[in-house]
Amino acid sequence: MSGLLGSVKGPQDVKRLTAEELPQLAGEVRDLLVDACAKFGGHLGPNLGVVELTIAVHRVFDSPRDPVIWDTGHQAYVHKLLTGRAAGFGALKQEGGLSGYPSQAESEHDHVENSHASTALSYADGLAKAFKLRGERDRTVVAVIGDGALTGGMAWEALNNIAGAKDLRVVIVVNDNGRSYSPTIGGLASHLSSLRVDRRYEDALEYVKGKIGNVPVLYDALHGLKKGIKDVVAPQAMFEDLGLKYVGPIDGHDEQAMEAALRKARDFRGPVIVHALTQKGRGYSPAENHDEDQFHSPGAFDRATGAEKPKGRIWTNVFSEELVRLGGERQDLVAITAAMLHPTGLNAFAEAYPERIYDVGIAEQHALTSAAGLALGGMHPVVAVYATFLNRAFDQLLMDVALHKLPVTVVLDRAGVTGDDGASHNGMWDLSLLQVVPGLKIAVPRDGERLIELLGEAVAVSDGPTVLRWPKGPVAESVERVDRLGEMDVLRAPGADDPDVLLVGVGPMAQVCMEAAVLLDAQGITTTVVDPRWVKPLDEALADAARTHRLVAVVEDNGRVGAVGDAVSRLLRDADCDVPVRSYGIPQEFLDHAKRAVILGRIGLTGQGLARQITEAVAKRSPQVSSPS
Amino acid sequence: MSGLLGSVKGPQDVKRLTAEELPQLAGEVRDLLVDACAKFGGHLGPNLGVVELTIAVHRVFDSPRDPVIWDTGHQAYVHKLLTGRAAGFGALKQEGGLSGYPSQAESEHDHVENSHASTALSYADGLAKAFKLRGERDRTVVAVIGDGALTGGMAWEALNNIAGAKDLRVVIVVNDNGRSYSPTIGGLASHLSSLRVDRRYEDALEYVKGKIGNVPVLYDALHGLKKGIKDVVAPQAMFEDLGLKYVGPIDGHDEQAMEAALRKARDFRGPVIVHALTQKGRGYSPAENHDEDQFHSPGAFDRATGAEKPKGRIWTNVFSEELVRLGGERQDLVAITAAMLHPTGLNAFAEAYPERIYDVGIAEQHALTSAAGLALGGMHPVVAVYATFLNRAFDQLLMDVALHKLPVTVVLDRAGVTGDDGASHNGMWDLSLLQVVPGLKIAVPRDGERLIELLGEAVAVSDGPTVLRWPKGPVAESVERVDRLGEMDVLRAPGADDPDVLLVGVGPMAQVCMEAAVLLDAQGITTTVVDPRWVKPLDEALADAARTHRLVAVVEDNGRVGAVGDAVSRLLRDADCDVPVRSYGIPQEFLDHAKRAVILGRIGLTGQGLARQITEAVAKRSPQVSSPS
Repeated sequence: MSGLLGSVKGPQDVKRLTAEELPQLAGEVRDLLVDACAKFGGHLGPNLGVVELTIAVHRVFDSPRDPVIWDTGHQAYVHKLLTGRAAGFGALKQEGGLSGYPSQAESEHDHVENSHASTALSYADGLAKAFKLRGERDRTVVAVIGDGALTGGMAWEALNNIAGAKDLRVVIVVNDNGRSYSPTIGGLASHLSSLRVDRRYEDALEYVKGKIGNVPVLYDALHGLKKGIKDVVAPQAMFEDLGLKYVGPIDGHDEQAMEAALRKARDFRGPVIVHALTQKGRGYSPAENHDEDQFHSPGAFDRATGAEKPKGRIWTNVFSEELVRLGGERQDLVAITAAMLHPTGLNAFAEAYPERIYDVGIAEQHALTSAAGLALGGMHPVVAVYATFLNRAFDQLLMDVALHKLPVTVVLDRAGVTGDDGASHNGMWDLSLLQVVPGLKIAVPRDGERLIELLGEAVAVSDGPTVLRWPKGPVAESVERVDRLGEMDVLRAPGADDPDVLLVGVGPMAQVCMEAAVLLDAQGITTTVVDPRWVKPLDEALADAARTHRLVAVVEDNGRVGAVGDAVSRLLRDADCDVPVRSYGIPQEFLDHAKRAVILGRIGLTGQGLARQITEAVAKRSPQVSSPS
Repeated sequence: MSGLLGSVKGPQDVKRLTAEELPQLAGEVRDLLVDACAKFGGHLGPNLGVVELTIAVHRVFDSPRDPVIWDTGHQAYVHKLLTGRAAGFGALKQEGGLSGYPSQAESEHDHVENSHASTALSYADGLAKAFKLRGERDRTVVAVIGDGALTGGMAWEALNNIAGAKDLRVVIVVNDNGRSYSPTIGGLASHLSSLRVDRRYEDALEYVKGKIGNVPVLYDALHGLKKGIKDVVAPQAMFEDLGLKYVGPIDGHDEQAMEAALRKARDFRGPVIVHALTQKGRGYSPAENHDEDQFHSPGAFDRATGAEKPKGRIWTNVFSEELVRLGGERQDLVAITAAMLHPTGLNAFAEAYPERIYDVGIAEQHALTSAAGLALGGMHPVVAVYATFLNRAFDQLLMDVALHKLPVTVVLDRAGVTGDDGASHNGMWDLSLLQVVPGLKIAVPRDGERLIELLGEAVAVSDGPTVLRWPKGPVAESVERVDRLGEMDVLRAPGADDPDVLLVGVGPMAQVCMEAAVLLDAQGITTTVVDPRWVKPLDEALADAARTHRLVAVVEDNGRVGAVGDAVSRLLRDADCDVPVRSYGIPQEFLDHAKRAVILGRIGLTGQGLARQITEAVAKRSPQVSSPS
């Protein structure tokens, strides 16, 4: 690597550069970011927005002694570049390559590595308390948090605590770009929204820099500025009410201004907010001009035009279209998203029925309990979230929705192995957690037709909550049933009277089971393949089906612990049916990032992998469990 | 029932009373509250604080058409009294009697019935959205929320959303008594704290009423009042920054002032905050003068003196004392509570090591992630919460603590059946949820000695999180082991060479298994009883032990789904050991309130109940599963 960036092996090299050299460094950083993301996809928009901010942080603070925590971690690409990891961008998010999030294994400059939003201030509070207790009073904790992440309740809990502790050395940098994924939601955001319509955001930055000049379009938006830009742009009074020192707003793209603000904040030796105004996608025009999400996290794209490579038809598309159709039939259907309107496919519903869509911000807890309120008021809410983020609202689903038997449908996108976003994005928890919720029904479609069919069944349930889940990526090929057994689809009925193995394929794993069945058949192991469709409650006919087999194998794209495999085993035990059960799923561990197909292969969730494992299980079956008499 | 209260069958009767009659009504309400709580225990302090507030709400609004949501539900006793349920206080929280929380089954005036904090504003947001969509524009939603519940992140998420929707008819009554369970924590609370020391709180109320007079002790606290009481007492600017209309502060014990404020708020037809200052325990001197928690939720007590009936030695006491001892040995031990310092027993640690205790407010999410930060900084945090409330922080335990393999010890009090607080307080979820967390270790002590032993083992773990859990109530009688099998204690080794049943008793269920074993023995069924001590990971020796028995029975005080029974079954399956497993625990449903012992009897978790069920299971065992060869 050449240029200034080639000379940067760590923060000390960033500090060594002159102020005059920094714009060149910023340019090189942006160039590399666009290149890497064009090739592999990645969180381009957020990182283009924090180039100068990150340079300033590393010139003012002494990382890793002063920990820098990113909220969320997807805005840490620049931080990685400045801490000696530029070469790693040649395999960004690829197996064995650089993670798309901070990673303890990659660098001593990365202190935490997860990516769920709104956590940084809590980490910072804890770290600063530890430093105080240990007498390390010269260490400052820096937390960089987006205005979107501030809509999450955790951030409020932390702010309230940090503000109550005057002697903690915490510098909170609010990276305020007015957008989380889509535009930031709520009262906090409304301070800024009028300034951000169309081009006015840019102009407000100019004003902050004292160069407002003659910009008539701004008059209406800015005439409140007589009382000072701070009172209009900044939620300053709010932070100061909490007892937090406030510095800002600062133009987050003015590196020297950012350095000055950060030095002031550092030297205060107590909790301080530094409010930086930034522009998502800054410096790459296809991102700056991207209406939807400023290139929040595109897949691979053409660098010249910004055109994303076509993805083909994905699960999300099927859901998106079908929900619009159902919304036409059912006036009581409303939809809720937690700052993920486009990624969940709810944008089509929002366009069709703008009065029936609610984006609550990065606030999954509120999403579920406000859904409970909507259902109490006679509506049927559909809450669409990524599977991993539902963990944030488990208590609300249990106590606020299920306890009241309310008709709320939750759809989980990105369920199962997602792959390249790493451990924190795999949706491998939901089928376990949700098993415990009384009265909740869970369906897993194996293909697009079943998604449509099961979504219809779910929104028709009026006496309790329902959940559907599907994976990331292209929708699976259709597999038609050959028979029906209660609620279950029989996909393959063996010719043999006395089949060996009952394969229970959950959702898209049904296809994998079909592949395995062919391979097993070739080895003389006869199989039945069923797709339970509804995995909670399971149809009790499953126990009857089990009794005619020598082994039951359950296959699912979820952590093995507590999921459908365990539920099948319990159903059988409770029916005093002791046919051996074996379960195949994701090992219960945090998975390293890699492509979904690579991971599924590694953990044996392929036709070949399953055939091999099931063959072994049949061979090793405890001798006392012979075939049923 | 005589008096004015006897004539109140519903809100219409409250409206009918003259203003002059209301003090008498308030007096009768307080009298009945104290009587009922003296007899059965209950949330006395909070309810004494909202007597006038509740009367005013029911005189101004039209319940149930205008839904009134209580946050938390434990402050709804007065609401129950004014909606025709006075007679039910004769069996408060008893089986078949009145619930201690709102209950849909009891009254159309109760819209939601759970009791986890900080949810009311989200319900209100959803209800108000539904009313708007349905064109029911004359309905107002009233949410009464304590200042303590405002420290919960959900409340912030909801406030942010409500503030962003100008046309929702939501009246938020902040019941500000400066205390959640213990004094409210954080920056929000610090506005009020200086006013509340000793007697100054009362005097501040006087000032609000314009009658401050000559109160020299107040000078320091109040000299900021030159800029107006609002700016000192009220977080007004914060709410107004969010775009919320603000009315207050109001003396919450001045019924007429409350009515006037609520009418004003109602007629605004948009979201409004009404800030009421109240006194927890008001009108009953043993509560008013109670240092610890103003009689937040005493057990049965003597009405004349306020002296609580002695409880004997409870699990919490054992933990409390041992943690103090460990804190003396280990300077890196710190403790965290979410507004439950006394109920969790951390008060003793707080007294001994005041610099090492953190009360984060009703903020379980922040509790866990700030614990992660403390652990990253070199400390070993012990987080003590009620088991049911850990559901709020599942994602934080998983992603922020476990993903980073941080040494955080979580102790869960009130695990298992708690009983008289109803469905939302039973700690029946943790042993299921926590199974899925990679690297987490879980121990369940069967008695006080084991609590001490396992707490010591837990805080010695340095490479990942640990959890301990124990039930509400008296600590169990000790049961000594007769042998050790790996990590497991063998409590009973049968004389027979070929025993029938391996009983796996989780924690205090080990004692129940011992009782069952005696009864089974009398029927010729021989048993081994083991206590696994650590239930995650389970010792693999369990599979070897299982192979020498005809049946394995797992008994636990947790929901049956996904808990230790399922884990034992999976362990055996993964070891290709197909000895039948049967599991006994709490049925996976929301339990009605009743005493713990009553519920355990009903669900069969007694020696007799188990003996009966296991006898049946042995008899029904599938014929093909004969004894091992």
